[in-house]
Amino acid sequence: MVPVNQWIKIKAPATVANMVCGFDILGFAVNNPYDEMEMRLVPRVNGQASITIINLDDYHLPTDPEKNVAGAALIALIEEYTANSIIEKSLSSEMDANSKNTDAAESSSCTKNNLIDFATIGFEIKINKLIKPGSGVGSSAASSAGAVVGANYLLGNPFTKDDLVRFAMNGEKVASGVKHADNIAPCIHGGVTLVRSIFPLEIVALPSPTLFVTIVHPQIEVRTADARSILKQNVQLKDAIKQWGNIAGLVAGLMKGDYDLIGRSLEDVIIEPVRSILIPGFDELKKACKAVGALGGGISGSGPSIFFLSKEKETALAVEQEMKKVYENLGLAYHTYVTNINQTGVEIEG
Amino acid sequence: MVPVNQWIKIKAPATVANMVCGFDILGFAVNNPYDEMEMRLVPRVNGQASITIINLDDYHLPTDPEKNVAGAALIALIEEYTANSIIEKSLSSEMDANSKNTDAAESSSCTKNNLIDFATIGFEIKINKLIKPGSGVGSSAASSAGAVVGANYLLGNPFTKDDLVRFAMNGEKVASGVKHADNIAPCIHGGVTLVRSIFPLEIVALPSPTLFVTIVHPQIEVRTADARSILKQNVQLKDAIKQWGNIAGLVAGLMKGDYDLIGRSLEDVIIEPVRSILIPGFDELKKACKAVGALGGGISGSGPSIFFLSKEKETALAVEQEMKKVYENLGLAYHTYVTNINQTGVEIEG
Repeated sequence: MVPVNQWIKIKAPATVANMVCGFDILGFAVNNPYDEMEMRLVPRVNGQASITIINLDDYHLPTDPEKNVAGAALIALIEEYTANSIIEKSLSSEMDANSKNTDAAESSSCTKNNLIDFATIGFEIKINKLIKPGSGVGSSAASSAGAVVGANYLLGNPFTKDDLVRFAMNGEKVASGVKHADNIAPCIHGGVTLVRSIFPLEIVALPSPTLFVTIVHPQIEVRTADARSILKQNVQLKDAIKQWGNIAGLVAGLMKGDYDLIGRSLEDVIIEPVRSILIPGFDELKKACKAVGALGGGISGSGPSIFFLSKEKETALAVEQEMKKVYENLGLAYHTYVTNINQTGVEIEG
Repeated sequence: MVPVNQWIKIKAPATVANMVCGFDILGFAVNNPYDEMEMRLVPRVNGQASITIINLDDYHLPTDPEKNVAGAALIALIEEYTANSIIEKSLSSEMDANSKNTDAAESSSCTKNNLIDFATIGFEIKINKLIKPGSGVGSSAASSAGAVVGANYLLGNPFTKDDLVRFAMNGEKVASGVKHADNIAPCIHGGVTLVRSIFPLEIVALPSPTLFVTIVHPQIEVRTADARSILKQNVQLKDAIKQWGNIAGLVAGLMKGDYDLIGRSLEDVIIEPVRSILIPGFDELKKACKAVGALGGGISGSGPSIFFLSKEKETALAVEQEMKKVYENLGLAYHTYVTNINQTGVEIEG
């Protein structure tokens, strides 16, 4: 457990959900962009909120914990922590007594087994969003996941990664109305992850070979809720069969390190045909990226960002040039990233 | 190339298609039961068919090649062989001259590169079906696959395994009206196979840990065409998502050798709820098999056979006892097999 008032730094990676054919189940983390956060336990004085959110960026996101994705995730964590805790009264009283003397609190003898009392202690979190909200590369997931991984570290790691995914999903509900884990899971676990089941939650880490990732974020707005609402609620069985052939192929390709199989499996016959109409230049860009050697790619999450995977870094850079050309021709502002798969997930600097 | 008139023996394994969650894409071969076949190249005399089928069993299957699954598969093979061949006239003439003298034909100098002429040479095939037609464990696939693997061997192996899958699918079309490969692929390749795509055909071999297989064949008739026709042509997106989570989980479980993950992934929310109503005792049997420790299982292909996978042989034997109990209580005749995954596919004894 980290002493009260001692700041920790948190780095929460962007993530690409769906991975073309794996709608709502697959995702991976990337090394760039990422959110920066700082977090500490603070003594609460009368009436002070148990969660204090300070935004360091210019996105003017809500600071009311219930309306903030990081806040909603932390509320879920605190609730379960408190419900499961047998509060050690003596420790709790000691902290309370020390609450006006931060130096004394910092040296309190909290151990992993000594549970704190959220009636007397709160979280303070500063968020610097480098992942633009609404970009489609897991901006909300980075905030939620970063916050709960940080909180868990501050509390002496009482929770498992799967617990943390569960808490962070409450942040996704605030952001998009749906408790999905396809960004949260890779953000917390790193690498490529499979959400085999949501209820009960089961995350499976999938090994993957070296893959370079090129991302373009055209500066248009696609709301996750809108991108969900245009999906058809029924799919043709024959299309579903094609899709699950590709999902099985993608998982096998990743685990075998078979780049060609990965490339052939990166095909989506169900979601992309509907969602891509919301993204200007999508078809042209896809054609151009594949022409210069990308293995495959598509919409990142619900868009508008688009990602392509490459075996070699130079291909990933050539893909970036193609992306730039498309959006320059269209006269749309954009931002690109050339990065690779992040294997660690959220990182803490103590 | 095997000399004309020289018999080869063929062993073609039964197969379990779908593997619960992988409708139309997954399948595996088992070591028991299997079909036995014998096959040879024969000189044709005027008017004689290029394919002669002799049934050694009592199933009275058609011997007209176009109506017989093995025949239909061989017709496709001969057509492609002939179309792609640059017939070496001299060789062809030599064979023709030798056609009334079988000893001479046997010693003909056909090599792998010397293509034969199906105007003068034909296949003779004897089939002893030990896999009961209509049992749901790939009886038609065994005939089709066995025939084309045998033919390829006789011709000096000019075709790849993927070619052979393609030819054998014509047999499936005769049997069920649909060119599916989920039995053919494991029958030819052995092990667990994924049909990632039908057009173009792509088979992916999936490694698997040791798995014991218990199969029960209740002696009722479920026609593949009927089992297909009762399926709904549309599925709910939310069910499709559950299904592809399980498929991805099953592939990952097989490749990681994670038995628990395999077990949890063996769930089918789309096909089984519809098809299982055709199989008396299904729900009760499933419950009983899982209660004694089976990892999971379900309908084999389109039924009526049911299979369950187990980690240990003794569990597979306990599963067999449960299966027997269910069908004895129901007063239905049945047959059971306790076997394991066949890793070789169709085997030839030269």
